Amino acid sequence: MSASENQLSRRRLLGYAAATTGVAASAAAGAMGGHMISQRVRPQPTDDSEMASQRVEAFFGPHQAGIATDPQAHALLLAFDLNEEVDLERFMALMRIISDDAARLTQGQPALADNDPTLAKNPAGLTVTFGFGPMLFTKLGLATQLPEGPVRIPGFDIDRLDVQWTDGDLIVQLCADDELALIHAQRMMVKDLRAFMSVRWAQRGFRPLPTVLSDTPRNVMGQLDGTSNPRPGTDEFSQTVWADAAPDVPEWFTGGTTMVVRRIRVELDEWDRLDEVGKELALGRKMDSGAPLGGTAEHDEPDFAARKEGGLPVIPTNAHIRRAHSDDGARIFRRSYNFDAGPTAGGTPEAGLLFVSFQARLRQFVAIQERLAEADMLNSYTTPVGSSVFFVPPGCEYGGWVGQTLLDR
Amino acid sequence: MSASENQLSRRRLLGYAAATTGVAASAAAGAMGGHMISQRVRPQPTDDSEMASQRVEAFFGPHQAGIATDPQAHALLLAFDLNEEVDLERFMALMRIISDDAARLTQGQPALADNDPTLAKNPAGLTVTFGFGPMLFTKLGLATQLPEGPVRIPGFDIDRLDVQWTDGDLIVQLCADDELALIHAQRMMVKDLRAFMSVRWAQRGFRPLPTVLSDTPRNVMGQLDGTSNPRPGTDEFSQTVWADAAPDVPEWFTGGTTMVVRRIRVELDEWDRLDEVGKELALGRKMDSGAPLGGTAEHDEPDFAARKEGGLPVIPTNAHIRRAHSDDGARIFRRSYNFDAGPTAGGTPEAGLLFVSFQARLRQFVAIQERLAEADMLNSYTTPVGSSVFFVPPGCEYGGWVGQTLLDR
Repeated sequence: MSASENQLSRRRLLGYAAATTGVAASAAAGAMGGHMISQRVRPQPTDDSEMASQRVEAFFGPHQAGIATDPQAHALLLAFDLNEEVDLERFMALMRIISDDAARLTQGQPALADNDPTLAKNPAGLTVTFGFGPMLFTKLGLATQLPEGPVRIPGFDIDRLDVQWTDGDLIVQLCADDELALIHAQRMMVKDLRAFMSVRWAQRGFRPLPTVLSDTPRNVMGQLDGTSNPRPGTDEFSQTVWADAAPDVPEWFTGGTTMVVRRIRVELDEWDRLDEVGKELALGRKMDSGAPLGGTAEHDEPDFAARKEGGLPVIPTNAHIRRAHSDDGARIFRRSYNFDAGPTAGGTPEAGLLFVSFQARLRQFVAIQERLAEADMLNSYTTPVGSSVFFVPPGCEYGGWVGQTLLDR
Repeated sequence: MSASENQLSRRRLLGYAAATTGVAASAAAGAMGGHMISQRVRPQPTDDSEMASQRVEAFFGPHQAGIATDPQAHALLLAFDLNEEVDLERFMALMRIISDDAARLTQGQPALADNDPTLAKNPAGLTVTFGFGPMLFTKLGLATQLPEGPVRIPGFDIDRLDVQWTDGDLIVQLCADDELALIHAQRMMVKDLRAFMSVRWAQRGFRPLPTVLSDTPRNVMGQLDGTSNPRPGTDEFSQTVWADAAPDVPEWFTGGTTMVVRRIRVELDEWDRLDEVGKELALGRKMDSGAPLGGTAEHDEPDFAARKEGGLPVIPTNAHIRRAHSDDGARIFRRSYNFDAGPTAGGTPEAGLLFVSFQARLRQFVAIQERLAEADMLNSYTTPVGSSVFFVPPGCEYGGWVGQTLLDR
């Protein structure tokens, strides 16, 4: 961007700050090159004039937005494949362009050559997150820059993967509290990419409104999903999610993370054959409160050693939370959405979980998933039908672009 | 329902009323058999404890909900076809069951034999609206009960209808501010219907969050859509929407309305070849403010007689608002949603308008649509790909069910 565009952006941001107080002020500070993302919190309305449709999330910062960001209500995940003739130089230009689109659209400004500037004015907390699939590194001659350790998700016996929902060279994760903001951002990004990349898949997800009972959202199974997630802002979160400088971490990847996307269909007709007690034994938690079996409140620590009078464990051996629990400290951060593709003609639900997790290293996810694939009771009620991994580069500062540390060498 | 269930429902409703003040109190009054629907207004939060997820809309009343109801953020429209062997008696039983589902779920109560009672607790303003397609009358031997006048939408030259999005014997319109509430209601209804009806189509729609500029929502074209809609609560609205007792209105249909559902794809790539001035000439309104050309504010009356210096009309002859305007007073009430089905592999948008209108008589819609099909400039940028009409029976009082006036004779 030129210096005058820089001035303009800052004036605009400050204009928003005047209208929306703390929210955009922190976004503006982020845009000026501060390290604001780790301190970013979900803005609270301060007066009636602040509307959810105008809320902005910072784009610039050491990490990309849309990861530690309190999950917005709606997500659109778009995976693209590189056309054969596209080389590294062209792909760099594309990342520059779509980074600029994201920097503008997230702040409520039209993209360059935006066809519908009116649709850009209400970003509703829009974030844009970019990640690179393992095949992209090979296609661009960058295979030596892949992080060490596994770079593909192994196949699991429970998988019934459909190529329609699997893999991809580039992911664009769009999240916002307003679907029109998402659609507009999708349209601008696709327009800039479509001459050089094809759309491999597009998946839409939603999260429910907050409820009185818990901040943890329910999924389509009725389960409170995400209770034991590391909390953004904590050391545990940072250690779980961000790739730190380390001998086995390529320099470009420092401040990045690994994104797993799995489309998990829930066999709701099977699940609904269970009564409430049956569902609770499969999960290891109460359906209503989310409390671990044997506990009383959602955030009680599960007592995996507790036994009933007859000697059986209170939390069954193959209960989901026992299988997901790790003694060796490998954790992941889940930022999942629900999906629903409407019933079939015969009335069978086609709904489930758009599972998204972020972790510094793919092996953190693989370790947990191997335990789950082996014996989780939920496996009888869920079918993974899509599976992808993306390496998410760190964020960029004002004037930079996402992917620069990998591509512009 | 039994008397004890009645007591329970009232206690539950009053429990909600304690937490949520006016909202549920009006719903409770509606459930007690009042004529509350015409006075229903969008509840305003009164304190922090009132959550959008708990908001309830009345189910019982002289008209069905989901028509005069301030449109919720999300809609799921489900069309079903009757299986061949299903007779009038069985269909009556089905309408009784799904009316009961709707009466409970809209009030935040589990359906009978609800598989996931926890998912029923947060209706988020859920409404359920039922309508009958013209073929249903024939299938059930009730053809003489069809309203007079046209009972099918005529084919228009602009139509490119796909059977996948067209017609249906029964529509279930589900609207709520939370998609999980919608999915749960969908699941309960489909479970009750699927042994006797097949799912013909399911369409999902969304509306944007309110913005500073206007209460009128924008559509995917960036247009403020719905400016000249009759306002619920006015005489104009009632005259436009509700079928009154009249010689040409079958008695069962009094208090009902006619619902038109059209899936209109927007050719966004074509639309975006227009600059802002070109779009404004096609619409007859300013893109940003929604003001009619020649006017200054959204709700200014369009001056169709105004001419520019050279003699050309300020609002072009084929502008959308001129073609949609009627001197003979035929009006419709639009309650549309946007849809997006994701881009094609090549990046072409598949998005548009899930057009929904309610009018006392189908001929009101047909008169307007004939003028639009003939010469609306927007026709170059839009393609109707689905088209259906449903006769929406009046509402019912506590203890009754929707469709009773037609079916239980």
